[in-house]
Amino acid sequence: MRLVVIGGVAAGTKAASRARRVDPNLGITIYQEEPEISISECGLPYLISGAVGGRDALVARTPEQFAEKDVEVLTRHRVTELDPKNKRLLVENLETGEKFEDSYDRLVIATGAKAVLPPIDGAGLDGVFTLRFLSDTDAITWYVQEHSPKKATVVGGGYIGLEVAENLKELGIEVSLVEAEGKVALDYGPEVSEKIEEHLKEKDVGVYTGSKVEEFMGDGRVRGVRVGETELETELVIVGTGIKPCVDLAEEAGAEVGASGAIRVDKRLRTSLRDVWAAGDCVETVNLVTGEATWVPLGDTANQMGRVVGTNATRGYDSEDILEFPGVLGTGVFKVFDLGVAKTGLSEEAAENAGFAVVTAAIDSADKAAYYAGASPTFVKLIADGATGRLLGAEIVGGNADKYVDICATAIWGRLSYPDLVNLDLAYAPPFGPVLSPIIGAASVLEGEFEKETEGVRATE
Amino acid sequence: MRLVVIGGVAAGTKAASRARRVDPNLGITIYQEEPEISISECGLPYLISGAVGGRDALVARTPEQFAEKDVEVLTRHRVTELDPKNKRLLVENLETGEKFEDSYDRLVIATGAKAVLPPIDGAGLDGVFTLRFLSDTDAITWYVQEHSPKKATVVGGGYIGLEVAENLKELGIEVSLVEAEGKVALDYGPEVSEKIEEHLKEKDVGVYTGSKVEEFMGDGRVRGVRVGETELETELVIVGTGIKPCVDLAEEAGAEVGASGAIRVDKRLRTSLRDVWAAGDCVETVNLVTGEATWVPLGDTANQMGRVVGTNATRGYDSEDILEFPGVLGTGVFKVFDLGVAKTGLSEEAAENAGFAVVTAAIDSADKAAYYAGASPTFVKLIADGATGRLLGAEIVGGNADKYVDICATAIWGRLSYPDLVNLDLAYAPPFGPVLSPIIGAASVLEGEFEKETEGVRATE
Repeated sequence: MRLVVIGGVAAGTKAASRARRVDPNLGITIYQEEPEISISECGLPYLISGAVGGRDALVARTPEQFAEKDVEVLTRHRVTELDPKNKRLLVENLETGEKFEDSYDRLVIATGAKAVLPPIDGAGLDGVFTLRFLSDTDAITWYVQEHSPKKATVVGGGYIGLEVAENLKELGIEVSLVEAEGKVALDYGPEVSEKIEEHLKEKDVGVYTGSKVEEFMGDGRVRGVRVGETELETELVIVGTGIKPCVDLAEEAGAEVGASGAIRVDKRLRTSLRDVWAAGDCVETVNLVTGEATWVPLGDTANQMGRVVGTNATRGYDSEDILEFPGVLGTGVFKVFDLGVAKTGLSEEAAENAGFAVVTAAIDSADKAAYYAGASPTFVKLIADGATGRLLGAEIVGGNADKYVDICATAIWGRLSYPDLVNLDLAYAPPFGPVLSPIIGAASVLEGEFEKETEGVRATE
Repeated sequence: MRLVVIGGVAAGTKAASRARRVDPNLGITIYQEEPEISISECGLPYLISGAVGGRDALVARTPEQFAEKDVEVLTRHRVTELDPKNKRLLVENLETGEKFEDSYDRLVIATGAKAVLPPIDGAGLDGVFTLRFLSDTDAITWYVQEHSPKKATVVGGGYIGLEVAENLKELGIEVSLVEAEGKVALDYGPEVSEKIEEHLKEKDVGVYTGSKVEEFMGDGRVRGVRVGETELETELVIVGTGIKPCVDLAEEAGAEVGASGAIRVDKRLRTSLRDVWAAGDCVETVNLVTGEATWVPLGDTANQMGRVVGTNATRGYDSEDILEFPGVLGTGVFKVFDLGVAKTGLSEEAAENAGFAVVTAAIDSADKAAYYAGASPTFVKLIADGATGRLLGAEIVGGNADKYVDICATAIWGRLSYPDLVNLDLAYAPPFGPVLSPIIGAASVLEGEFEKETEGVRATE
């Protein structure tokens, strides 16, 4: 019995490791286009500044370590064709150009996602980069060492752009951040975007929102960015305007692709092709708040899916002894300088678009008892379903954002409502937080909003 | 309409504030024995070392601030008798000795808990203290300034004792910690107690477990502690061997008291006496994991109960427009030097005693991505119900203990099981944690334990 895994980053390597653990006798091969496998891609922005000590630190496991577990890893190999009927693959060795056939009994597609470089004039100039693979940070690092840029422009105000802006600034480079939409952190409510923009300005990052990049200018190397009518001098550009799932191989082989553009899978992570599973950034999953299909490409989710798919592909397409991956909430966190920013579930806008009658509460609190040293401000916004009181989403900015968002994510997973949140038995001691967690504080305000609504009903009755 | 609140620390002051918000016209009086109200008692150990900047920092609100909200506060007043039939109180002014009668329409008892000084010879010596009220830290601070003790003994290895040991050590005092039972942190599993004891030793605290204090020795002032056969030289003793609820007033008036020794209340926090509510450290509540009555006196819970009781006492004993306090999980966290220690729900032992067939998993993880600076080790133990897979409890030691325990507390509240925990959509970015939260990691191990059990069943079938 032979399992082939296409893609060797988070989902692919986790699937292979898990499959080996479930079945010590399974033949396992990973094909991977990049020279390295098992890359912690979320750490890449931190490689630019050196906050992460060297590229090797981001390689969780090497092909040699997999070989010890009897998992064959072929790097610099691209699977160019998939014939699901005959369970055959066409593979190209990217080093030698050699092509060969391979076959599988079970197949896991974990082809990930790739950066999208928008069609902007001058995008091909030296010094214009995207950031997705280790090879990208290698190239950026080389470029920075070679040319010592004084000014850089980051295109895109999502979390990658924001993380990159911080890390370039840490190198002493003057940074401008350009975002085509009216605010950074588009997935968040306006209060959060404002707080981030204020913080960027405090940190001397030039912020250009509602500003479309018209052209990268230069002569061989990039020298400027035209944004609307203004021109920004720049010697380095990093574009973080988005990624898209790598689905060509699966789609051409006949696998169903969802409206999100990612491969459609069921809860067992099976594609529509028999004996073919898929996991990670190339698949769509279910948003557990709305029940709708969603595409949320994140490293932790890819890891979790890898565990499920590695188990299930080993046990068989029709086995009942399988694991399920139920879906995601859209939880995420990022750091931008001294600010933690996090969300889970639906934003107010997303909840309204999903048809909920939304009730929200927002508070400014702190992450420690006020009298204890080192307290930081924390902003919490809770989004609830007006009909049932159920928590639908949360947004946090400031101290302990990662902690407070995880409480909310767990609460949404457990379908808790505001009366639960108000009474939730969370841990308290002065070094760790205020006597009432900001989540409980925000839930109390939420309760007040619901009481007002009830009083409104009483008043009109 | 007049509301009287007996006790002015966490539950009492919160109840009064809340009552004022619900009903701007209610007459409200708080009787408080101590000279101050609204004390953050959990901060008291930190006052000893000066980690908290001055005693005023621990007074959340003054009587004057309450007066501005038209809440009368009478400090240094003790309610000595309660006549629930006639809704009358006998009150003693502790400054003048004067006694007077008062009456109420609605009464909230929030008399709290007091430290228990065990019957040890020499407990009356100068330099032997308990730590419960601001007046205790005042006395300890004065004593330390006056006598500059070089050696101190802390009696009791619960969280108060451990916090006190740290704070005395911060003052440069040599500290011995004596615990009668075989381990510190009795509520926790042995792995946790061991880690704490190791850490105490690293920090040069003498740890004497399984060691009963036989006698405090000295001549006016304490000079030594006899522990079994050995004698510890000591110039200062702080006893943190436990507290008990202050229920005499309520019990003498006929209020039901539970097996825990605390006042019995329903979910509305009503006592068995008409128009009398109770909240905070003087009441028992429900352990939501076992459904049994429990007494867990903690400041955050007292605050939450204050909110509920303030609302309900204002709305009336038979009103349906009330809030409920459903119970607690037994969540707690404390810091001992560099170690965070936290728990929620049941320990393995408590779960077994409650009749569960227990499955556990424990892992050593870290609180950040391994390649990111400043990662600390984190120990996680999960306790699950073998029959259903439901999470029953968790214990955490190390980095981000407060965060991980709050995730588990929320998970227990939402009655989540290990398949939920394994797939939980928590927030990840390298500055905030490893790619898979230690909770998810521990849940994976837990899943493995359940699979082993299933295989065991299969093998024997």
